[in-house]
Amino acid sequence: MASQEVKLLSLWVSPFGHRVEWALKLKGVEYEYIEEDIFNKSPLLLELNPVHKKVPVLIHNRKVILESLLILEYLDEKWKEFPLLPQDPYEKATARFWANFGEAKLLRPGWAALRSQGDEKERALKLWIEDLEKIEGELKGKKFFGGETIGYLDLAMGWISYMLPVWEEVGCLTILDPKKFPSITAWTEKFLSHPVIKENLPPRDKMIVYFEKRIKEPVSAQ
Amino acid sequence: MASQEVKLLSLWVSPFGHRVEWALKLKGVEYEYIEEDIFNKSPLLLELNPVHKKVPVLIHNRKVILESLLILEYLDEKWKEFPLLPQDPYEKATARFWANFGEAKLLRPGWAALRSQGDEKERALKLWIEDLEKIEGELKGKKFFGGETIGYLDLAMGWISYMLPVWEEVGCLTILDPKKFPSITAWTEKFLSHPVIKENLPPRDKMIVYFEKRIKEPVSAQ
Repeated sequence: MASQEVKLLSLWVSPFGHRVEWALKLKGVEYEYIEEDIFNKSPLLLELNPVHKKVPVLIHNRKVILESLLILEYLDEKWKEFPLLPQDPYEKATARFWANFGEAKLLRPGWAALRSQGDEKERALKLWIEDLEKIEGELKGKKFFGGETIGYLDLAMGWISYMLPVWEEVGCLTILDPKKFPSITAWTEKFLSHPVIKENLPPRDKMIVYFEKRIKEPVSAQ
Repeated sequence: MASQEVKLLSLWVSPFGHRVEWALKLKGVEYEYIEEDIFNKSPLLLELNPVHKKVPVLIHNRKVILESLLILEYLDEKWKEFPLLPQDPYEKATARFWANFGEAKLLRPGWAALRSQGDEKERALKLWIEDLEKIEGELKGKKFFGGETIGYLDLAMGWISYMLPVWEEVGCLTILDPKKFPSITAWTEKFLSHPVIKENLPPRDKMIVYFEKRIKEPVSAQ
């Protein structure tokens, strides 16, 4: 491919941003990383993503691509090395279905469940665990979501491997009991042992400090 | 293509289902339509879509594909006639971005805004109109979202052309003032005059009766 200019605006702790960073590294794409302060958004971020004002933002030869899952699709079309999505249209639809499920039912609802109180918390955690069980079922008998190698859905679900344990610690509870979630537990170990993933994770200590602060903030601040 | 068995489970009034029906008709795919009663869900629907229990469901040679936007992508890969998504990866990412925006900010939030009350209604309608203005901006100077012909994003936004006017009637308000939304107004006329769209719309009278009933139901019932 001809000379490429790739830039990524992200936040060190963003699980959405990490998906994109992993994909860029897996594909061997060189890029410039620009750290964004989401509590004091830069004019650049507001200019590039005026609709949602969120990271990650990918800039490729001055074109702006938004939303982490759509960025993964874009990278997969532009850089053929280390394909992320399945080639078969049915398998592709299935991977996208579960990635959307993860966004709608697991990632933000999980954090919201941890921060809720009383009966509402009990109800939200129960729902969350039921939805995690669906992912457990989907992973059963597989090495990775993507089969023998890491793929699109592994990157989409990647936060479960390194961020969920931090949430468990700051929330003082256990969600991913290995006896109840043997497939997710086994996948977590394999996922985290991949060199690209292992070397591109936010520091655990820094995450603990960050989420200990955020879990106490009023819900409206998030 | 070899012999194909295509079935679609939908509901006569579902805007999600209509996207898929339009795509099937535009591509000339023969299919069996199965009407689903979403207030009394069939064992077939619960078996095919146990996660969300929603229509539309596409069955293609016994494979099950879920979620209307993902079904459009699947159909576009399987049937090359009348391509829906742009070929260029950047344009594709942009079309997907606006389709997701429509789901998250316009379709369900619009209906929720209409059914809310008091200050909450005023706030929700204001937000909705601001988000519709973003679509107005996106359409400016274009015949269709897809360029010269109807494409993926036109089908995704199709409900604005025929369902939003019904919502305006049952909600006794005007959202799409043609002076404020000239591009959407012009697009609506062109979209609805396409033979495949025109001949595959739910009857307006029946929609009025349906939504007049539903707008009065408690929010928890929806």
